[in-house]
Formats: sequence, structure tokens, C-alpha cells
Amino acid sequence: MAKEPKTLDELFHDTLKDIYFAEKKILATLPKMAKAAQSEELKAAFEKHRTETEGQIERLEKVFEQKPQGKTCAAINGITEEGAEIMEEYKGSPALDAGLLAAAQAVEHYEISRYGTLIAWAEELGLDDAVSLLEETLEEEEATDEALTEIAKTAINQEAQAA
Amino acid sequence: MAKEPKTLDELFHDTLKDIYFAEKKILATLPKMAKAAQSEELKAAFEKHRTETEGQIERLEKVFEQKPQGKTCAAINGITEEGAEIMEEYKGSPALDAGLLAAAQAVEHYEISRYGTLIAWAEELGLDDAVSLLEETLEEEEATDEALTEIAKTAINQEAQAA
Repeated sequence: MAKEPKTLDELFHDTLKDIYFAEKKILATLPKMAKAAQSEELKAAFEKHRTETEGQIERLEKVFEQKPQGKTCAAINGITEEGAEIMEEYKGSPALDAGLLAAAQAVEHYEISRYGTLIAWAEELGLDDAVSLLEETLEEEEATDEALTEIAKTAINQEAQAA
Repeated sequence: MAKEPKTLDELFHDTLKDIYFAEKKILATLPKMAKAAQSEELKAAFEKHRTETEGQIERLEKVFEQKPQGKTCAAINGITEEGAEIMEEYKGSPALDAGLLAAAQAVEHYEISRYGTLIAWAEELGLDDAVSLLEETLEEEEATDEALTEIAKTAINQEAQAA
């Protein structure tokens, strides 16, 4: 059976479902990472981002015109699986926090890429409200990534190395 | 059996294996994406990046002090699986190229995050040659991401929308 050719509008909504699934997965993962982190600063960063993620999910729910739906996002499953491996393999090790932090940055970069794409498509589709909501989230993700880089530079990597 | 605490040096090498696996996967995936792409500009961008990826793999081989090894990278498997879904679900659709391009940018962002982390750790470990090699690749990945954004802005998204 021939399928209907899919439009940018459908691609936008498919990708919205993908990031909605991803955000929910991240919401469930951050408390585990906060619990595993050894440094108080990194714990606090993960907890702060967990709260932000709740707001990001609410924003996505506003972008959906109908009932929000998720769609299994193979990418976030794979990226968070790497974080879980770090928690397991580096438990009790001086390099644990450096590994957790890097895993969190891989998650942030996936989101930065996805939100950047969604904003471009929402602009093309003339969805102005969606553009504003998605931009708000993109800014938070970029700020989180920068904050993690700062923590990495000032503390975590040196600790991992000095131990 | 208690495991030995793992150091930053081990984390660096584990992550090097992870990105080595990822680059090889990307090398195998890019020709499929180039074949699937409808626009000549996007095809050319994927083919160019395929050649660059060969050089990036050679650089990683120089960074390994011993025989290069890969380690299954769940993240890249997940990210490339999403690209494969786009090729399947959007085949013959006007939005195909926009979807392929977005999938490629998700790959680039994963790599940007990983190389950024590896450079920070190599600096911490005093591995100057590794820093230079990894920085060269990071610059290429960032340039690829920017080139893809330009193609998206100037052509692909409009085509997907106009169709």
C-alpha cells in the first residue's frame, strides 16, 4: 500500500513527539544521576535541571495542538544507556562525576540539536507561539550545557585526575 | 569481587573507544543518507562529510597509544536508528531531506559533545598531541553542523514546506 507523502508539518509533529518522549525519559533519569554524583555542585546542577525539565515538558504540552503524545526516541534511549553504564562501571571511582557530567552534556547536545531543528521548522510553518516556547527551552538547554562545562573545568576533571 | 576504582585516564580511553565505534558507524551510514537525499546539495554535503570522517578515524587511531579498539556506543546506535526511521517513513515525501538533515545534525551534536569532553580530559591528562588531533576533528564537526544549518535555512525547509 502506497503511503501518503509526508509534509513538514507531519515531520514537525513527529519530532515533537520524539523530544516529548526524550524529556520524560530525562526527567526520570536526572534524580538517578543526582543520587549517583559525588560532588554537591554536580548534584545541585542535576536537581536544578530536573526542575527545569518539568517546565520544558509543560511548554511542549502547550506546543501540541492536541493531546500530547510520545514516540519512542531511540536516540535518547541510547544516550541515557551510556549514562547508566557510567553509573555502573565507575561506581566509587574518582572519575565517576567526570563521566556523569559528560553523559549529561551528551543529553544536552541532543536536545540542543532537536530544539534548534524544531524552531527552524516552526518558523517555516508560521507557528509563532511554538517558536517562542521552543526558544525558551533551547536557551535553558544551552545554559545548562555551559554550566556543566564550567563545573567540569573548575572541579570535576581536576578531582578525577588528582585522585 | 570489588572492582578497582577507575581513573580519568581510563575514562578517557573508554570514551575514545566509544567515539571510535561511533565514527565507524557514521562512515557506514553516510553513503546511505547521501543515496536517500533528494537534493544534490545535501547529497554533496553527506559525501564530503564521509571523506572527512575517514580522516577523523585516522586521527583517532593516532590518539590511541595501542591498537585502536571500539566499544559499542549505544548512543550512536540510537541516533542513527532515528535516521533510518526517517529514510523509511519519509521515503518519497517532500519532507525527507529536512528529516535527513535534522538526523545528521543530531549526529554532529553528539560528536561535538564527545570531542569537547575528550579535549578537556586530554588537557587534564597532559596529552598534548591528543588535544591537537581532537581539536582538528571538533572544528570539522562544528563546520559540518554549520554547513547543514545553512543548507536547511536556504533550501531544504522551504522545499519541504512548499511541496
